[in-house]
Amino acid sequence: MTRKSYFEDFLVGATLSLGEHTFSQDEMIAFAEKFDPQPVHIDPDAALKSDYGGLIASGLYTCSVMMGMLTRQVLLDSSAMGSTGIDEIRWLKPVRPGDTMTVSLVIEGARLSHTRFDRGVIVMRWDGANQHGEQVVYVRAKLMFGRRPPPAMDSLLV
Amino acid sequence: MTRKSYFEDFLVGATLSLGEHTFSQDEMIAFAEKFDPQPVHIDPDAALKSDYGGLIASGLYTCSVMMGMLTRQVLLDSSAMGSTGIDEIRWLKPVRPGDTMTVSLVIEGARLSHTRFDRGVIVMRWDGANQHGEQVVYVRAKLMFGRRPPPAMDSLLV
Repeated sequence: MTRKSYFEDFLVGATLSLGEHTFSQDEMIAFAEKFDPQPVHIDPDAALKSDYGGLIASGLYTCSVMMGMLTRQVLLDSSAMGSTGIDEIRWLKPVRPGDTMTVSLVIEGARLSHTRFDRGVIVMRWDGANQHGEQVVYVRAKLMFGRRPPPAMDSLLV
Repeated sequence: MTRKSYFEDFLVGATLSLGEHTFSQDEMIAFAEKFDPQPVHIDPDAALKSDYGGLIASGLYTCSVMMGMLTRQVLLDSSAMGSTGIDEIRWLKPVRPGDTMTVSLVIEGARLSHTRFDRGVIVMRWDGANQHGEQVVYVRAKLMFGRRPPPAMDSLLV
Protein backbone atom coordinates (compact mmCIF):
# COMPACT_ATOMS: atom_id res chain seq x y z
CA MET A 1 0.00 0.00 0.00
CA THR A 2 1.53 3.32 -0.99
CA ARG A 3 -1.09 5.69 0.43
CA LYS A 4 -2.56 5.93 3.92
CA SER A 5 -4.77 2.92 4.64
CA TYR A 6 -8.17 3.27 6.29
CA PHE A 7 -10.59 0.65 7.55
CA GLU A 8 -12.19 0.47 4.10
CA ASP A 9 -8.89 -0.46 2.45
CA PHE A 10 -8.58 -3.82 4.19
CA LEU A 11 -10.54 -6.07 1.86
CA VAL A 12 -11.69 -9.32 3.42
CA GLY A 13 -9.91 -12.19 1.70
CA ALA A 14 -6.90 -10.16 0.60
CA THR A 15 -3.34 -11.29 1.40
CA LEU A 16 -0.53 -8.76 1.83
CA SER A 17 3.19 -9.52 1.88
CA LEU A 18 5.09 -8.14 4.90
CA GLY A 19 8.52 -9.24 3.67
CA GLU A 20 11.01 -11.52 5.40
CA HIS A 21 13.36 -11.63 8.36
CA THR A 22 16.46 -13.74 8.95
CA PHE A 23 17.03 -14.67 12.60
CA SER A 24 20.51 -14.40 14.10
CA GLN A 25 21.48 -16.34 17.20
CA ASP A 26 22.62 -13.12 18.90
CA GLU A 27 19.28 -11.33 18.51
CA MET A 28 17.36 -14.43 19.65
CA ILE A 29 19.47 -14.70 22.80
CA ALA A 30 19.34 -10.94 23.52
CA PHE A 31 15.52 -10.96 23.52
CA ALA A 32 15.24 -14.17 25.55
CA GLU A 33 17.69 -13.02 28.21
CA LYS A 34 15.24 -10.23 29.04
CA PHE A 35 11.87 -11.84 28.47
CA ASP A 36 12.14 -15.63 28.29
CA PRO A 37 15.45 -16.86 29.76
CA GLN A 38 14.81 -20.59 29.40
CA PRO A 39 17.96 -22.60 28.56
CA VAL A 40 16.57 -23.64 25.16
CA HIS A 41 16.39 -19.93 24.20
CA ILE A 42 19.66 -18.61 25.70
CA ASP A 43 22.15 -21.46 26.13
CA PRO A 44 23.29 -23.18 22.89
CA ASP A 45 24.98 -26.07 24.74
CA ALA A 46 21.99 -26.82 26.97
CA ALA A 47 19.68 -26.46 23.95
CA LEU A 48 21.71 -29.05 22.03
CA LYS A 49 20.93 -31.61 24.73
CA SER A 50 17.22 -30.71 24.88
CA ASP A 51 14.33 -32.27 22.95
CA TYR A 52 14.73 -29.45 20.41
CA GLY A 53 18.32 -30.41 19.53
CA GLY A 54 19.51 -26.80 19.43
CA LEU A 55 18.71 -23.19 20.21
CA ILE A 56 15.22 -22.02 19.22
CA ALA A 57 13.62 -18.58 19.27
CA SER A 58 11.29 -17.64 22.10
CA GLY A 59 7.77 -17.74 20.69
CA LEU A 60 7.23 -14.19 21.91
CA TYR A 61 10.29 -13.09 19.97
CA THR A 62 8.93 -14.57 16.75
CA CYS A 63 5.67 -12.67 17.36
CA SER A 64 7.52 -9.45 18.21
CA VAL A 65 9.45 -9.66 14.92
CA MET A 66 6.15 -10.09 13.05
CA MET A 67 4.65 -7.12 14.90
CA GLY A 68 7.63 -4.98 13.87
CA MET A 69 7.11 -5.94 10.23
CA LEU A 70 3.36 -5.26 10.42
CA THR A 71 3.94 -1.87 12.02
CA ARG A 72 6.53 -0.71 9.48
CA GLN A 73 4.79 -2.13 6.40
CA VAL A 74 1.18 -1.28 7.24
CA LEU A 75 0.31 0.41 10.52
CA LEU A 76 2.59 3.47 10.39
CA ASP A 77 0.91 4.70 7.22
CA SER A 78 -2.63 3.91 8.29
CA SER A 79 -5.45 5.05 10.56
CA ALA A 80 -4.57 2.30 13.10
CA MET A 81 -6.06 3.01 16.55
CA GLY A 82 -4.71 0.10 18.55
CA SER A 83 -5.71 -3.46 19.28
CA THR A 84 -8.17 -4.90 21.74
CA GLY A 85 -6.57 -8.29 21.68
CA ILE A 86 -5.26 -11.43 20.08
CA ASP A 87 -7.53 -14.42 19.62
CA GLU A 88 -5.00 -17.12 18.86
CA ILE A 89 -1.27 -17.74 18.56
CA ARG A 90 0.10 -21.11 17.46
CA TRP A 91 3.78 -21.98 17.33
CA LEU A 92 3.83 -24.86 14.87
CA LYS A 93 7.55 -25.44 14.33
CA PRO A 94 10.73 -24.15 15.99
CA VAL A 95 12.56 -21.13 14.55
CA ARG A 96 16.35 -21.62 14.61
CA PRO A 97 19.35 -19.33 14.09
CA GLY A 98 19.80 -18.61 10.37
CA ASP A 99 16.15 -19.34 9.53
CA THR A 100 14.44 -16.85 7.23
CA MET A 101 10.78 -16.23 8.01
CA THR A 102 8.50 -14.87 5.29
CA VAL A 103 5.43 -13.15 6.70
CA SER A 104 2.09 -12.53 5.05
CA LEU A 105 -1.05 -10.90 6.31
CA VAL A 106 -4.48 -12.36 5.54
CA ILE A 107 -7.50 -10.12 6.06
CA GLU A 108 -9.95 -12.55 7.65
CA GLY A 109 -12.77 -10.23 8.64
CA ALA A 110 -14.04 -6.67 8.99
CA ARG A 111 -16.85 -5.11 10.98
CA LEU A 112 -17.86 -1.61 11.94
CA SER A 113 -17.58 -0.64 15.59
CA HIS A 114 -20.80 -1.21 17.51
CA THR A 115 -20.33 1.95 19.54
CA ARG A 116 -18.25 4.46 17.55
CA PHE A 117 -19.29 5.51 14.04
CA ASP A 118 -15.79 6.57 13.00
CA ARG A 119 -13.96 3.24 13.26
CA GLY A 120 -14.06 -0.48 12.62
CA VAL A 121 -12.31 -3.71 13.55
CA ILE A 122 -10.15 -5.71 11.14
CA VAL A 123 -9.44 -9.35 11.98
CA MET A 124 -6.08 -10.29 10.49
CA ARG A 125 -3.98 -13.43 10.50
CA TRP A 126 -0.19 -13.09 10.43
CA ASP A 127 1.36 -16.18 8.81
CA GLY A 128 5.07 -16.94 9.18
CA ALA A 129 6.79 -19.58 7.02
CA ASN A 130 10.42 -20.69 7.00
CA GLN A 131 12.81 -21.04 4.07
CA HIS A 132 11.53 -24.61 3.50
CA GLY A 133 7.99 -23.33 2.96
CA GLU A 134 6.81 -24.76 6.28
CA GLN A 135 4.44 -22.64 8.36
CA VAL A 136 6.11 -21.97 11.71
CA VAL A 137 3.63 -19.61 13.42
CA TYR A 138 0.35 -17.80 13.02
CA VAL A 139 -1.31 -15.03 14.99
CA ARG A 140 -4.97 -14.02 14.75
CA ALA A 141 -5.35 -10.40 15.94
CA LYS A 142 -8.05 -7.73 16.07
CA LEU A 143 -6.99 -4.19 15.17
CA MET A 144 -9.06 -1.03 15.17
CA PHE A 145 -8.79 1.38 12.21
CA GLY A 146 -10.39 4.75 11.59
CA ARG A 147 -12.86 4.93 8.69
CA ARG A 148 -12.00 6.96 5.61
CA PRO A 149 -13.14 10.57 6.14
CA PRO A 150 -16.10 11.58 3.99
CA PRO A 151 -15.28 13.78 0.97
CA ALA A 152 -15.40 17.52 1.55
CA MET A 153 -18.67 19.19 0.56
CA ASP A 154 -17.15 21.16 -2.28
CA SER A 155 -15.98 17.98 -4.00
CA LEU A 156 -19.68 17.11 -4.32
CA LEU A 157 -20.47 20.28 -6.27
CA VAL A 158 -21.34 19.77 -9.95
CA MET B 1 7.26 -22.94 44.80
CA THR B 2 10.63 -23.79 46.29
CA ARG B 3 11.22 -27.18 44.64
CA LYS B 4 11.08 -28.19 40.99
CA SER B 5 7.52 -28.09 39.72
CA TYR B 6 6.06 -30.88 37.62
CA PHE B 7 2.74 -31.16 35.80
CA GLU B 8 1.14 -32.61 38.95
CA ASP B 9 2.07 -29.52 40.99
CA PHE B 10 -0.17 -27.12 39.06
CA LEU B 11 -3.47 -27.53 40.89
CA VAL B 12 -6.49 -26.39 38.92
CA GLY B 13 -8.00 -23.37 40.67
CA ALA B 14 -4.78 -22.28 42.37
CA THR B 15 -3.50 -18.70 42.03
CA LEU B 16 0.24 -17.94 42.21
CA SER B 17 1.81 -14.51 42.67
CA LEU B 18 4.47 -13.60 40.11
CA GLY B 19 5.41 -10.29 41.74
CA GLU B 20 5.29 -6.81 40.26
CA HIS B 21 7.03 -4.65 37.67
CA THR B 22 7.24 -0.86 37.40
CA PHE B 23 7.38 0.42 33.83
CA SER B 24 9.86 3.15 32.89
CA GLN B 25 9.34 5.32 29.83
CA ASP B 26 12.84 4.44 28.58
CA GLU B 27 12.26 0.68 28.59
CA MET B 28 8.83 1.09 26.95
CA ILE B 29 10.33 3.17 24.13
CA ALA B 30 13.37 0.87 23.71
CA PHE B 31 11.12 -2.15 23.11
CA ALA B 32 8.70 -0.32 20.83
CA GLU B 33 11.46 1.16 18.66
CA LYS B 34 12.37 -2.38 17.69
CA PHE B 35 9.04 -4.17 17.62
CA ASP B 36 6.14 -1.70 17.55
CA PRO B 37 7.31 1.79 16.50
CA GLN B 38 3.91 3.48 16.48
CA PRO B 39 4.00 7.13 17.63
CA VAL B 40 1.85 6.38 20.69
CA HIS B 41 4.56 3.95 21.89
CA ILE B 42 7.75 5.88 21.01
CA ASP B 43 7.00 9.61 20.74
CA PRO B 44 5.79 11.29 23.97
CA ASP B 45 4.75 14.50 22.17
CA ALA B 46 2.74 12.73 19.48
CA ALA B 47 1.23 10.44 22.13
CA LEU B 48 0.07 13.48 24.12
CA LYS B 49 -2.04 14.59 21.15
CA SER B 50 -3.44 11.09 20.52
CA ASP B 51 -6.68 9.58 21.88
CA TYR B 52 -4.57 8.02 24.65
CA GLY B 53 -3.37 11.38 25.99
CA GLY B 54 0.19 10.19 26.53
CA LEU B 55 2.70 7.45 25.92
CA ILE B 56 1.45 3.88 26.46
CA ALA B 57 3.28 0.54 26.44
CA SER B 58 3.09 -1.66 23.37
CA GLY B 59 0.76 -4.52 24.20
CA LEU B 60 3.47 -6.98 23.21
CA TYR B 61 5.83 -5.34 25.66
CA THR B 62 3.36 -5.79 28.51
CA CYS B 63 3.08 -9.47 27.56
CA SER B 64 6.86 -9.86 27.26
CA VAL B 65 7.32 -8.45 30.77
CA MET B 66 4.76 -10.96 32.08
CA MET B 67 6.55 -13.79 30.26
CA GLY B 68 9.83 -12.77 31.89
CA MET B 69 8.21 -12.88 35.32
CA LEU B 70 6.59 -16.27 34.62
CA THR B 71 9.89 -17.71 33.39
CA ARG B 72 11.94 -16.53 36.36
CA GLN B 73 9.32 -17.30 39.03
CA VAL B 74 8.02 -20.63 37.73
CA LEU B 75 9.37 -22.09 34.50
CA LEU B 76 13.10 -22.11 35.20
CA ASP B 77 12.62 -24.42 38.18
CA SER B 78 10.09 -26.71 36.52
CA SER B 79 9.71 -29.45 33.94
CA ALA B 80 8.40 -26.92 31.36
CA MET B 81 8.64 -28.27 27.80
CA GLY B 82 7.40 -25.28 25.80
CA SER B 83 4.09 -23.91 24.66
CA THR B 84 1.87 -24.83 21.75
CA GLY B 85 0.10 -21.51 21.77
CA ILE B 86 -1.89 -18.74 23.31
CA ASP B 87 -5.67 -18.79 23.19
CA GLU B 88 -6.46 -15.22 24.12
CA ILE B 89 -4.83 -11.89 24.93
CA ARG B 90 -6.89 -8.87 25.98
CA TRP B 91 -5.46 -5.41 26.60
CA LEU B 92 -8.10 -3.85 28.81
CA LYS B 93 -6.48 -0.58 29.85
CA PRO B 94 -3.34 1.32 28.80
CA VAL B 95 -0.09 0.87 30.72
CA ARG B 96 1.74 4.18 31.20
CA PRO B 97 5.24 5.17 32.36
CA GLY B 98 5.51 4.81 36.13
CA ASP B 99 2.69 2.28 36.36
CA THR B 100 3.32 -0.75 38.55
CA MET B 101 1.79 -3.98 37.29
CA THR B 102 1.15 -6.83 39.72
CA VAL B 103 0.94 -10.19 38.00
CA SER B 104 -0.77 -13.36 39.15
CA LEU B 105 -1.10 -16.75 37.57
CA VAL B 106 -4.37 -18.65 37.69
CA ILE B 107 -4.28 -22.37 36.89
CA GLU B 108 -7.39 -22.75 34.77
CA GLY B 109 -7.05 -26.32 33.55
CA ALA B 110 -4.89 -29.42 33.29
CA ARG B 111 -4.99 -32.44 31.03
CA LEU B 112 -2.64 -35.28 30.21
CA SER B 113 -1.15 -35.35 26.74
CA HIS B 114 -3.19 -37.43 24.32
CA THR B 115 -0.09 -38.80 22.61
CA ARG B 116 2.83 -38.80 25.11
CA PHE B 117 2.52 -40.52 28.47
CA ASP B 118 5.26 -38.44 30.11
CA ARG B 119 3.71 -34.95 29.87
CA GLY B 120 0.58 -32.86 30.20
CA VAL B 121 -0.83 -29.46 29.28
CA ILE B 122 -1.53 -26.72 31.83
CA VAL B 123 -3.90 -23.92 30.82
CA MET B 124 -2.90 -20.80 32.73
CA ARG B 125 -4.17 -17.25 32.81
CA TRP B 126 -1.71 -14.42 33.47
CA ASP B 127 -3.52 -11.47 35.06
CA GLY B 128 -1.93 -8.02 35.20
CA ALA B 129 -3.35 -5.24 37.40
CA ASN B 130 -2.12 -1.68 37.87
CA GLN B 131 -1.46 0.22 41.10
CA HIS B 132 -5.14 1.29 41.21
CA GLY B 133 -6.26 -2.34 41.30
CA GLU B 134 -7.58 -2.18 37.72
CA GLN B 135 -6.97 -5.19 35.49
CA VAL B 136 -4.94 -4.00 32.48
CA VAL B 137 -4.25 -7.25 30.61
CA TYR B 138 -4.76 -10.99 30.65
CA VAL B 139 -3.23 -13.82 28.66
CA ARG B 140 -4.58 -17.37 28.42
CA ALA B 141 -1.75 -19.74 27.46
CA LYS B 142 -1.16 -23.47 27.13
CA LEU B 143 2.12 -24.81 28.45
CA MET B 144 3.44 -28.35 28.39
CA PHE B 145 5.07 -29.79 31.52
CA GLY B 146 6.74 -33.15 32.16
CA ARG B 147 5.02 -35.44 34.65
CA ARG B 148 6.66 -36.21 37.99
CA PRO B 149 8.95 -39.23 37.58
CA PRO B 150 7.69 -42.38 39.33
CA PRO B 151 9.44 -43.31 42.60
CA ALA B 152 12.43 -45.62 42.28
CA MET B 153 11.68 -49.30 42.89
CA ASP B 154 13.71 -49.49 46.09
CA SER B 155 11.61 -46.78 47.70
CA LEU B 156 8.69 -49.22 47.41
CA LEU B 157 10.46 -51.93 49.46
CA VAL B 158 9.00 -52.58 52.86
